[in-house]
Amino acid sequence: MTLDRSTLRWNGWGFARHEDNFADATRLWPFLAEALGTPDLPHTPAKTLAESTLAPSTLAFGDLAPFQQAGCEIGMTPEDRAFHTRGDSYRDLLDLRGGKLDPAPDAVIYPKDAAACQRAIELADKAGLALVPFGGGTSVVGGVSPLKGSHRGVLAIDTTKLDKLISVDRASLRATAEAGIYGPFLEQKLNAQGVTLGHYPQSFEFSTLGGWIAARGAGQQSNRYGKAEEWLVSARLATPKGPWATEAFPASSAGPRLTDLVAGSEGTLGLITEATFQVHERPTARDYRAYLFPSFEAGREAIRHIIQADIPVSSLRLSDEDETHFFGALSRLTSPPKTAHKLQDAYLKLRGFGGARCALIAGAEGDEGLVAYARSAIATIVRKHGALAAGTSPAKNWLKGRFHGPYLRDPLMDRGLGVDTLETAASWADIPKLYSAVRAALLETTRRVSENGAHGICLAHISHSYRDGASLYFTYLWPRSTGGLDAEIAEWHAIKSAASDAIATNGGTISHHHGAGTDHAKWMADEKGATSMAVLRALKAELDPNGIMNPGKLGL
Amino acid sequence: MTLDRSTLRWNGWGFARHEDNFADATRLWPFLAEALGTPDLPHTPAKTLAESTLAPSTLAFGDLAPFQQAGCEIGMTPEDRAFHTRGDSYRDLLDLRGGKLDPAPDAVIYPKDAAACQRAIELADKAGLALVPFGGGTSVVGGVSPLKGSHRGVLAIDTTKLDKLISVDRASLRATAEAGIYGPFLEQKLNAQGVTLGHYPQSFEFSTLGGWIAARGAGQQSNRYGKAEEWLVSARLATPKGPWATEAFPASSAGPRLTDLVAGSEGTLGLITEATFQVHERPTARDYRAYLFPSFEAGREAIRHIIQADIPVSSLRLSDEDETHFFGALSRLTSPPKTAHKLQDAYLKLRGFGGARCALIAGAEGDEGLVAYARSAIATIVRKHGALAAGTSPAKNWLKGRFHGPYLRDPLMDRGLGVDTLETAASWADIPKLYSAVRAALLETTRRVSENGAHGICLAHISHSYRDGASLYFTYLWPRSTGGLDAEIAEWHAIKSAASDAIATNGGTISHHHGAGTDHAKWMADEKGATSMAVLRALKAELDPNGIMNPGKLGL
Repeated sequence: MTLDRSTLRWNGWGFARHEDNFADATRLWPFLAEALGTPDLPHTPAKTLAESTLAPSTLAFGDLAPFQQAGCEIGMTPEDRAFHTRGDSYRDLLDLRGGKLDPAPDAVIYPKDAAACQRAIELADKAGLALVPFGGGTSVVGGVSPLKGSHRGVLAIDTTKLDKLISVDRASLRATAEAGIYGPFLEQKLNAQGVTLGHYPQSFEFSTLGGWIAARGAGQQSNRYGKAEEWLVSARLATPKGPWATEAFPASSAGPRLTDLVAGSEGTLGLITEATFQVHERPTARDYRAYLFPSFEAGREAIRHIIQADIPVSSLRLSDEDETHFFGALSRLTSPPKTAHKLQDAYLKLRGFGGARCALIAGAEGDEGLVAYARSAIATIVRKHGALAAGTSPAKNWLKGRFHGPYLRDPLMDRGLGVDTLETAASWADIPKLYSAVRAALLETTRRVSENGAHGICLAHISHSYRDGASLYFTYLWPRSTGGLDAEIAEWHAIKSAASDAIATNGGTISHHHGAGTDHAKWMADEKGATSMAVLRALKAELDPNGIMNPGKLGL
Repeated sequence: MTLDRSTLRWNGWGFARHEDNFADATRLWPFLAEALGTPDLPHTPAKTLAESTLAPSTLAFGDLAPFQQAGCEIGMTPEDRAFHTRGDSYRDLLDLRGGKLDPAPDAVIYPKDAAACQRAIELADKAGLALVPFGGGTSVVGGVSPLKGSHRGVLAIDTTKLDKLISVDRASLRATAEAGIYGPFLEQKLNAQGVTLGHYPQSFEFSTLGGWIAARGAGQQSNRYGKAEEWLVSARLATPKGPWATEAFPASSAGPRLTDLVAGSEGTLGLITEATFQVHERPTARDYRAYLFPSFEAGREAIRHIIQADIPVSSLRLSDEDETHFFGALSRLTSPPKTAHKLQDAYLKLRGFGGARCALIAGAEGDEGLVAYARSAIATIVRKHGALAAGTSPAKNWLKGRFHGPYLRDPLMDRGLGVDTLETAASWADIPKLYSAVRAALLETTRRVSENGAHGICLAHISHSYRDGASLYFTYLWPRSTGGLDAEIAEWHAIKSAASDAIATNGGTISHHHGAGTDHAKWMADEKGATSMAVLRALKAELDPNGIMNPGKLGL
């Protein structure tokens, strides 16, 4: 079971029929214009597919017939090629909305199973064609851009026909599935057998198991269920040098664990066709609730203490002052005014919370004993750090709307706004300076690129935490350049580069869970260092000597 | 601070002055002889160093002067070379005790710091000399055997002068240390700053940080503190291609995590000179207690449920029937008889425990709330699986004596016995058949090699557990061949091969925490598969093109 691609937007997020969250929010646009210091927000609709430029395929049916015989469906319609021409980054949307579809894949191939993947890769290798692995296509780092390197053509190899749950091992709490299965179908099938993977990235509805692994993704409950490289037990790949299956032990000391090379490989070493991963019994108890902190620092310290005390939480999500304020204001704007809000504000002021406050959503899942222990241990620690309990409603609202964020981007881009996100991670010792430096770089650059005295806004949160550090996630909006596509891209690049440089010089990784793709390749090479990059190139040369697998990604 | 090697046994375990645990146990030898079905146990003392064969070094001082100038001390005495000629496996002890010291390293070099390591490696690379990294030298898989491949000589490169704790980051709970620091000194220095690594392998007193990482070791509290690859944050290596430093982020998605290639590399890719690792605040509460189960299966299922319910334990150690019985009998033999024992036996019989019973030691460490939660959650689960509480004394005794096991081997080998251990890990689904198959192979082979109707005994335990599986550790004794060194080695090889084949065909890894070294290389290649081995060879060719780093280990 898979998604019918014709129900999805080719140049935006998610289901085409999904209603525009902002459609009725007449108070929203003036609020945003004021927040950004711009007189008004122009209408800037996207081009239609018919208005877009898509160069003819350089391949003929004769080139593709062998792939068909090898068990692949072939897609060469403009709709097919357009859908596979970019991922889902702001940078990608600039191209797509601007009607610039080149470079596009010359064709899309849909292998029906792992054997067809292997044959297709061998055929492409012989024919000198580059292959771009494509699952859900939700990369936000240029991970599925159809770069062909020095090859004569490029095919998107779409994995979504590999959509079977193969087996569940209830004793070992492991499951094995084909890599192209979408999140909701995978969870549905696992749930039917009483288990869950629990991997819920924001892209959950439109991304695949293989993509999560290839990009080392993280779900919103990663504290409990783990990041992709943590729940991944073993992978099977199709590579130009033949099928590759990695170890499948709970632990081993028989040489380095090569499964770890698959997580984060982004299709550059081979195509993930199947994965075995850890699952959990479905939780019988859950507790998600909100707390308000007087500062980001106080909330951050609470998270650090919770994690370092080994409290079994599933999720700790702390918004900084501006994010707490902005989403609070947003929800008041898009819903009827309530007296409760005024009372709340007055109460907080009384308790010493000025304008600044930071919301934490803390969750635990498992059996009743574990959840009770976690809830009480969390409450003790957050109180020590000055937090006020804010009940379960904000947490419920967050859980309900947690996949909807990306839907907001399309209407924002329709109204002349730039909107992008980036994320990083660092040790606890480095987090304060990293947060300040990236935020400063984003505010400074969005102000600089904005015209007529307008400026950007920058919201941040911590959503993944570890004993030795945490992630930082930034969302930023600004009035987009009115100078056309090239100017928009230059503006994006200026902002992205400034923030990425700030990450690199302040102890952060260029990405915590988005991956490296094309956009982060330069910074990734710097953070890995020359020896590590030589190691990656040696790996690639061994498995993909002709460099056909996702050329240019990870700088390989 | 490091150990004075002259205080250590060169052909046995630990401190030379350590007293023989069995010296006064006059009842022990008849008990063992009876258990093994052999009329008596001959005296089979080890040869002295003077009685041993050690070929002259093929290197002259002129060959070594450059290493001295590069910051290395040089060791060429017979004592120095003998200490570095083997690790601490039963197979190694056969050689050492039999006086067969060849192949031996031509010399030992002791670099004073990371820079000296790098220069030494470059010198060796130019001079065509193989290097065998040597920390504590406690490998039990032939990991430090001085194989020279096609090189003209071989040096042991001893890391124990790299013994500094470099820094502790209290906020991030990370520490950085030089790789040659011994366990006790590392813990002492960490403890002085309020933290602990908590890595306590049985070899703790005589092994080093770098060795733990190189061999992917596991400590006895690995449930809490993690296996080496779990607590390792980042490593620095000296390699023939230059210094290599890996990433140091709490998490990242910028390409594959190459730190994972260092764990388990066993010196084949380079020499670990420094490591950053996660530490914990020293626990303020601890609870270790014992339970008795009516069967190994019941205890195993209890462990599985405890781990899969995410109870924060530090250690779960379950002995099978024979191990529980044997160590019970052993402790009664070496201490005065007690009426309490008889009462205990009667009580167990009454509660439906026949002769068979299995001891579990369950431990939790952390703050008081966590330990209280863990203790109560453990108690609930073990009761469901038919366990009886056996109090805290057995756990205290285990904690007290947990590094003493290897000391027993020397007196056993002095009395004509063969004694070896091996370990593996598999998914929970595979554990039952793996346990039966390996045990059967060990019992069958030790019986077959024993003379005059004697036979071996086989004891097993689970000491490391994961959501998706567990380790199995086997200890086996048998009356050793009386046919001389070659016969002893052939006998060892027959037993080891039979057990390793049983592991390979029943879903186990050839090693959970001992490493692969020389002894496991063949089975490791099978379990990794041809593609993974090609990947490892490509990595080695990149970092060590002339193959000077620990030749032959991991089959590389």
